[in-house]
Amino acid sequence: MPGVAKVMKVLEPYKLSGRHVQRERTKVRVGPGTGCIFGGEIVPVVAGPCSVETPEQIVHIAKLLKDAGASALRGGAYKPRTNPFAFQGHGVEGLKMLAEARRVTGLPIVTEVVAVEDVPVVSEYADCLQIGTRNAQNFRLLEAVGRQPRPVLFKRGMSMTVDEYLQAADYILSAGNDQVILCERGIRTFENHTRNTYSLATITELQHRSHLPVVGDPSHGTGHAHLVPAMSKATLACGADGLILEVHHDPRHAWSDGAQSLDPQQFVDLMAQLARIAEAVGKSLAPAVSV
Amino acid sequence: MPGVAKVMKVLEPYKLSGRHVQRERTKVRVGPGTGCIFGGEIVPVVAGPCSVETPEQIVHIAKLLKDAGASALRGGAYKPRTNPFAFQGHGVEGLKMLAEARRVTGLPIVTEVVAVEDVPVVSEYADCLQIGTRNAQNFRLLEAVGRQPRPVLFKRGMSMTVDEYLQAADYILSAGNDQVILCERGIRTFENHTRNTYSLATITELQHRSHLPVVGDPSHGTGHAHLVPAMSKATLACGADGLILEVHHDPRHAWSDGAQSLDPQQFVDLMAQLARIAEAVGKSLAPAVSV
Amino acid sequence: MPGVAKVMKVLEPYKLSGRHVQRERTKVRVGPGTGCIFGGEIVPVVAGPCSVETPEQIVHIAKLLKDAGASALRGGAYKPRTNPFAFQGHGVEGLKMLAEARRVTGLPIVTEVVAVEDVPVVSEYADCLQIGTRNAQNFRLLEAVGRQPRPVLFKRGMSMTVDEYLQAADYILSAGNDQVILCERGIRTFENHTRNTYSLATITELQHRSHLPVVGDPSHGTGHAHLVPAMSKATLACGADGLILEVHHDPRHAWSDGAQSLDPQQFVDLMAQLARIAEAVGKSLAPAVSV
Amino acid sequence: MPGVAKVMKVLEPYKLSGRHVQRERTKVRVGPGTGCIFGGEIVPVVAGPCSVETPEQIVHIAKLLKDAGASALRGGAYKPRTNPFAFQGHGVEGLKMLAEARRVTGLPIVTEVVAVEDVPVVSEYADCLQIGTRNAQNFRLLEAVGRQPRPVLFKRGMSMTVDEYLQAADYILSAGNDQVILCERGIRTFENHTRNTYSLATITELQHRSHLPVVGDPSHGTGHAHLVPAMSKATLACGADGLILEVHHDPRHAWSDGAQSLDPQQFVDLMAQLARIAEAVGKSLAPAVSV
Repeated sequence: MPGVAKVMKVLEPYKLSGRHVQRERTKVRVGPGTGCIFGGEIVPVVAGPCSVETPEQIVHIAKLLKDAGASALRGGAYKPRTNPFAFQGHGVEGLKMLAEARRVTGLPIVTEVVAVEDVPVVSEYADCLQIGTRNAQNFRLLEAVGRQPRPVLFKRGMSMTVDEYLQAADYILSAGNDQVILCERGIRTFENHTRNTYSLATITELQHRSHLPVVGDPSHGTGHAHLVPAMSKATLACGADGLILEVHHDPRHAWSDGAQSLDPQQFVDLMAQLARIAEAVGKSLAPAVSV
Repeated sequence: MPGVAKVMKVLEPYKLSGRHVQRERTKVRVGPGTGCIFGGEIVPVVAGPCSVETPEQIVHIAKLLKDAGASALRGGAYKPRTNPFAFQGHGVEGLKMLAEARRVTGLPIVTEVVAVEDVPVVSEYADCLQIGTRNAQNFRLLEAVGRQPRPVLFKRGMSMTVDEYLQAADYILSAGNDQVILCERGIRTFENHTRNTYSLATITELQHRSHLPVVGDPSHGTGHAHLVPAMSKATLACGADGLILEVHHDPRHAWSDGAQSLDPQQFVDLMAQLARIAEAVGKSLAPAVSV
Repeated sequence: MPGVAKVMKVLEPYKLSGRHVQRERTKVRVGPGTGCIFGGEIVPVVAGPCSVETPEQIVHIAKLLKDAGASALRGGAYKPRTNPFAFQGHGVEGLKMLAEARRVTGLPIVTEVVAVEDVPVVSEYADCLQIGTRNAQNFRLLEAVGRQPRPVLFKRGMSMTVDEYLQAADYILSAGNDQVILCERGIRTFENHTRNTYSLATITELQHRSHLPVVGDPSHGTGHAHLVPAMSKATLACGADGLILEVHHDPRHAWSDGAQSLDPQQFVDLMAQLARIAEAVGKSLAPAVSV
Repeated sequence: MPGVAKVMKVLEPYKLSGRHVQRERTKVRVGPGTGCIFGGEIVPVVAGPCSVETPEQIVHIAKLLKDAGASALRGGAYKPRTNPFAFQGHGVEGLKMLAEARRVTGLPIVTEVVAVEDVPVVSEYADCLQIGTRNAQNFRLLEAVGRQPRPVLFKRGMSMTVDEYLQAADYILSAGNDQVILCERGIRTFENHTRNTYSLATITELQHRSHLPVVGDPSHGTGHAHLVPAMSKATLACGADGLILEVHHDPRHAWSDGAQSLDPQQFVDLMAQLARIAEAVGKSLAPAVSV
């Protein structure tokens, strides 16, 4: 047969995201001029509800979080739901609600984008674009967020190896955006007492192999609010560059993920404990912002 | 806080794809007027290389496959590669090569689509659109293939439960397309002698819970050519509605996935064995097509 | 420090059980003078209840199985139960009930041994000693069954790799007993629609790497009776050297594992189908024994 | 059929080890009169080599560990090795070497027992008997250590659920020994950058469901020394009742598990960091013992 034998040279598993490219840790700032910087000695905590539900809800929560010392507000306007008949998020209206919460509190916004066609509008409103676990190998979407100017919070796929994850990060970096925050959010295993198995050693390994900052998401990592405080402390103790937490003013009535959301008092208590852990590892929590 | 408690009613895990909706098995024909029908007593085998490499290669392989009794030709024009620096497929040029192979052999074409923006062009050239494992929860893409007229070969995500898989299928069905073929292609487990763990019981369970036809992909399910013949026979013996196999005229020089590709002689031998298994379970292999 | 650096030479992962030691497949006969031989072209089916419950029950089932064409009777006298307060088996009394069933039907007996101290008595009564999945790395027990004269049906540990499994088999072989039958019985994965994930490719791989016969246990491999017939056919189609199945005269009232047990009529129907599959792969089922 | 339908009443998954039996945490002291107590506010660190290699080695390491603040000495005299041809431990001679190290340093001894017949001798020499992951469902062995008077360090099976683990602990408790320390040591998953996936949330969950103290083993939990310090800190930060660590005076020449062993200086450095973490969660490390 006349086919041409094309030699595909053996490639390193990952290139741009590797420590061999850059020894010092990349610092990623979320929100122009803010102190919400990932990758340094001051550790930011991103918090907020799973879904943006109503304008009042998101402003209400944002104020509580800000007072408790959160560095950024998270909340979903576009929700990639397993069930097509479940609440899918408010879309652009949700982005506007988040922008209003930012105007009121000064907290920068982290929100998920689920499709290439939504990247421009999300990039317009948000301070940081999140890529969720189900899209971690949606390579076109990775390229699209790599071509816009906001930082990207890139969650690990739920069954991705470290090699695959850093190669996926390379899709973003090779498109021109090196403002990428990696995030461990739990993996699929046989364990059934948690929604996922939160693999903290992967945070340490990612910091070992990559120059990108690495944060932990113990809310998705466990799926149960009663495990979140202990796992948050463990995350900072192992040296993570930040945390992302689900907090809801009324978890029992949350439109999604209520079982894994902290209530405001739990969050306040946890922040005090996290400050002590951060100190014990030679860091500090980012101070509360004043508007 | 003034937020409205919105009652989200508890939903059945899946709706449109379930057996409770339709008792008889859905039949899905690939290629207008062909005998390549999934879901009946005559079992089609889809075969072809991982990647469309050159015009000569794909026509050459298509002829071999047709002579050996394949019912459809598979081949990748858009490749979702783990590594951003690896060969990504020929895109539209690859689709044209596939169309030429169809013109020469009469075999209908199955090929993957990886992005919403590519759906129209892939739908124009292909007889069946494949959704790969990495996009199994790329819900926007599922909706997009649900809005075009070709059947969809929808592979299970590598760490998806049966419930999640059928809910994802519901994204396609609810967008208006009920011509969906499910496909077990192996899951992520601790096992390291195979690329994935090929879970045949899931084929049987999917047939139990859903009216959609279900096929197996032992090439990806194992990742090793020496395991493919045995697993292909097992797939038909358990009652699957078809097979999809990687076959390459020269696996050692394949541009991708050579380790799991059968060579032409192995495919010819296997088809003879598969005919006997099909008969043993009261079915038959689809007969070789003549142009 | 005065310690001596002891050089531990790098060892092949497994030695005695490997194909490099012996090309032809080892044949293992269960029961003196019987036709129940694993590793040849005539495929035995071992069947019986999870637990030996009463003298009447086991004789009753044994007769049904014998009439349906089973080659050997399985049944548990010593049960390794997850819960310490659940039924643990009848012990020696159970062995005597099995012996009586053998006397009546002529079927040789396969039964589990769970402790070194029980090996002599189980070896006295049984024709084949089973090592269960929870004891697959109980190395002292492996050595003990390696020092007695009966063949051993050695089930894979539920999270064992192929390398680890063959090394564990080496514990039996190196103690002097090469009459070992390997058995795939499902592995622990994230899948939740089955009790385990039945990994058929592992049967083929084990036959590839080892000279020992390899059988499948789709009852434990799936945990659900409605999946057992399809998986039994798949097991023979992929070339396994035998099957071990749970059959109970009244599964709803079984003392253990009822959900995965076939009833007698299901077993009769399945045996007819299995005969056709065996033929399709150039083998035959072992013929029904006459007393 | 005349069989008797025996009603097996539905049992709670675990009984004696559950928090519903006892609200306050059980305290387990290792070594008569020592301050090595698990389950209180003073957290013990158990450290030592994987294998007891020579009399000089174990005394040498024990002195280093004692000076650095370890509360107990671990070391293997009976090694359950995957490969039957690898070093299996010195047996009774190893126990004597451990006893000598205890005599010299005052550190109590934790060592593994792998067989029922070895329980008396191990119980004679050791202060605490360890059950390893491969024997976590070796129920006869659990019963045997339940009938002797020393505390038991009971490691979780590598693919055991929390329910199964506490039921297995019930085998020990129901035999009469309630001095049981639970231990998370990593589970089998698809992850390949570590030897196991260290599941810290399971420590928190076990403390939630059980009154028994729970420790972590980040050496086996990760398999790589470069991950052990971060995971040790995370373990204490999440509230574990202690740590068990592999430390070797010369890891490159260890007879087993060298890749995951800390060297003495790493251990000294880590202990200083652990003291700060313990303080941050309102506890303290057990003080260094003086002979």
